[in-house]
Amino acid sequence: MADRHHGGDIYQREIAWDFSVNVNPMGPPVRVQQAIRESADHVDCYPDPQCRGLVQALAEYHKTEKERIVCGNGAADLIYRLAYLLKPGRALLLAPTFSEYEQALTSVGCQVRYCRLKEENGFQADMRELADRTEEGELIFLCNPNNPTGLAADIDQVERLARTCRKKKGFLILDECFCEFLEKPSEYSFMERIQDYPEAVILRAFTKSYAMAGLRLGYGVCGDRDVAERLRLTGQPWSVSIPAQEAGRAALLETEYLEQSRSLIAGERRRVSRRLADMGFLVFPSQVNYVLFKDVEECKHGNIGKRLQERGFLIRDCSSFKGLEAGKEDPVFCFYRIAIRRQEENNRLLDAIQGIVLS
Amino acid sequence: MADRHHGGDIYQREIAWDFSVNVNPMGPPVRVQQAIRESADHVDCYPDPQCRGLVQALAEYHKTEKERIVCGNGAADLIYRLAYLLKPGRALLLAPTFSEYEQALTSVGCQVRYCRLKEENGFQADMRELADRTEEGELIFLCNPNNPTGLAADIDQVERLARTCRKKKGFLILDECFCEFLEKPSEYSFMERIQDYPEAVILRAFTKSYAMAGLRLGYGVCGDRDVAERLRLTGQPWSVSIPAQEAGRAALLETEYLEQSRSLIAGERRRVSRRLADMGFLVFPSQVNYVLFKDVEECKHGNIGKRLQERGFLIRDCSSFKGLEAGKEDPVFCFYRIAIRRQEENNRLLDAIQGIVLS
Repeated sequence: MADRHHGGDIYQREIAWDFSVNVNPMGPPVRVQQAIRESADHVDCYPDPQCRGLVQALAEYHKTEKERIVCGNGAADLIYRLAYLLKPGRALLLAPTFSEYEQALTSVGCQVRYCRLKEENGFQADMRELADRTEEGELIFLCNPNNPTGLAADIDQVERLARTCRKKKGFLILDECFCEFLEKPSEYSFMERIQDYPEAVILRAFTKSYAMAGLRLGYGVCGDRDVAERLRLTGQPWSVSIPAQEAGRAALLETEYLEQSRSLIAGERRRVSRRLADMGFLVFPSQVNYVLFKDVEECKHGNIGKRLQERGFLIRDCSSFKGLEAGKEDPVFCFYRIAIRRQEENNRLLDAIQGIVLS
Repeated sequence: MADRHHGGDIYQREIAWDFSVNVNPMGPPVRVQQAIRESADHVDCYPDPQCRGLVQALAEYHKTEKERIVCGNGAADLIYRLAYLLKPGRALLLAPTFSEYEQALTSVGCQVRYCRLKEENGFQADMRELADRTEEGELIFLCNPNNPTGLAADIDQVERLARTCRKKKGFLILDECFCEFLEKPSEYSFMERIQDYPEAVILRAFTKSYAMAGLRLGYGVCGDRDVAERLRLTGQPWSVSIPAQEAGRAALLETEYLEQSRSLIAGERRRVSRRLADMGFLVFPSQVNYVLFKDVEECKHGNIGKRLQERGFLIRDCSSFKGLEAGKEDPVFCFYRIAIRRQEENNRLLDAIQGIVLS
């Protein structure tokens, strides 16, 4: 069977250490796991289609109105529901970026253009350039921080882009799924200003922030309550399961967990990046829980991704990302993305890579 | 916030006894609940997008090929994914029937026609009439057994309709979500013949059969493997959560549970139907775990649904079903659907209804 290329497919291989997915390295909070176990007692009921309890908790958490919030079966569910709802004719995406935007958009017949990020700029997205290139009525998906690069545009830069989208009667979807892993999320998240931009939606995911990828839970915060209402009515009524709704409420009670996660990630990211650079890789700057690097000497030691798999490690070969395709200009270059995990796990991976490089 | 009208919304009312949803009255099997609890230990992983283990188990259960099977976030997810994939221009539906078919179809711009079931025939669907009315290239959603009536067309009747759909280059979606509650499912399910009809898909739901509505798990079995492949690639990759995949595999090990459920339901359905008829309601014949009845004397005792709610019981007021709209010809008639539950619960409901009728 065919499949789209993503990290985390540990189901057809012997994988002991998965560095291919970017979930919180601290693992799910204990109270999240407890909520899942307790939900087993009432799974015979249908879930609340409106996720009232969770939406209320999210409104308090983000200090916004509950009428702006729509929950989904993971942020990926909302990406598709937004495409089905808005049915945009044209869209502008970064390259590289998360591939499901393109999948969702083309499935509704949207014509997709790309703004290619430049390797010489460390793949940093230039909001001014993106705004300049935006055409009348165009939809923009901005992954901020971006995947697989790990770089974020700050709140003022994002606002410039949002103003352009308004002026050009377009629409802006800000995917902030990795925002909680930034050292200072509030300097980058558009959450505080979203209510001023009816043509914008922010996406967030419990999946990543609270290591709940297997449970599927994401949400959108809409600048326009009417968009929220229509998004809620797009697709089936019961998209969010009871375990997910209850785990989500439990997660929001975790006040120190995210703080601890940010601290762990910041320290380990610097250490891992340095060691990879020391081994001769070209390591790109990242602000979150994953690092993009380029193997400039693949000709010497073969494909690191494949060789790590033989040792039980899965990392993300980025050749399926538009903008990072391997072998176009020089077939021996390959980009990889690795998740930042706990110190001991990171050391195992680094040692395995070192073993390959030195062999 | 607006919402579509369905049973099971126990989240904004004080409901002690929910008879508005049609899940298995035996509740989820113990090993299903155990699987949910155990899944809490590895929800940090992404779910397998292809649901390999569950699909393999389903293929063995139904004695079919795994390439025909597609899992979804409840059968409702697959209803929408089929609409997004097939994008039919025209469709023919029964009236009354499950309302999400129409919702899904109209969301892709489909023009929907209805074949109204006749009250004088006990709302039994006539496959010959349905086949005669089918137009070139039309999609048919057939809920079999139908909701909210509880009546099924047998396998030969369904095959006649399937042949018509083939001849007219249409498509047939058979929703068999309630099939396991029939006394003899094999006489009605199209599962054994589906491989001969590439223009047909069968939908099934763990939701109903194993009382797992809160978990969201359904699947489609496609006559054409290519349709299955394309359906799998419609929408997000990770639509089925880890708890749902693991609970599904556990459920399929339950060999006696469904047999016991069928026996409980058959006996209780006859008893409940008789008592409702004795109270003066017009009770329609049903073959599954719910019963449709008409209150012909609502003028005397007021709206039973509302009065039951005051007593903590939720039943399904059917006035939102096309074909059962209240008040068109005579405003004092109203249709209700109640689930068949365990004896003691059924007695509580019957006593409450009797109290209202006699008051």
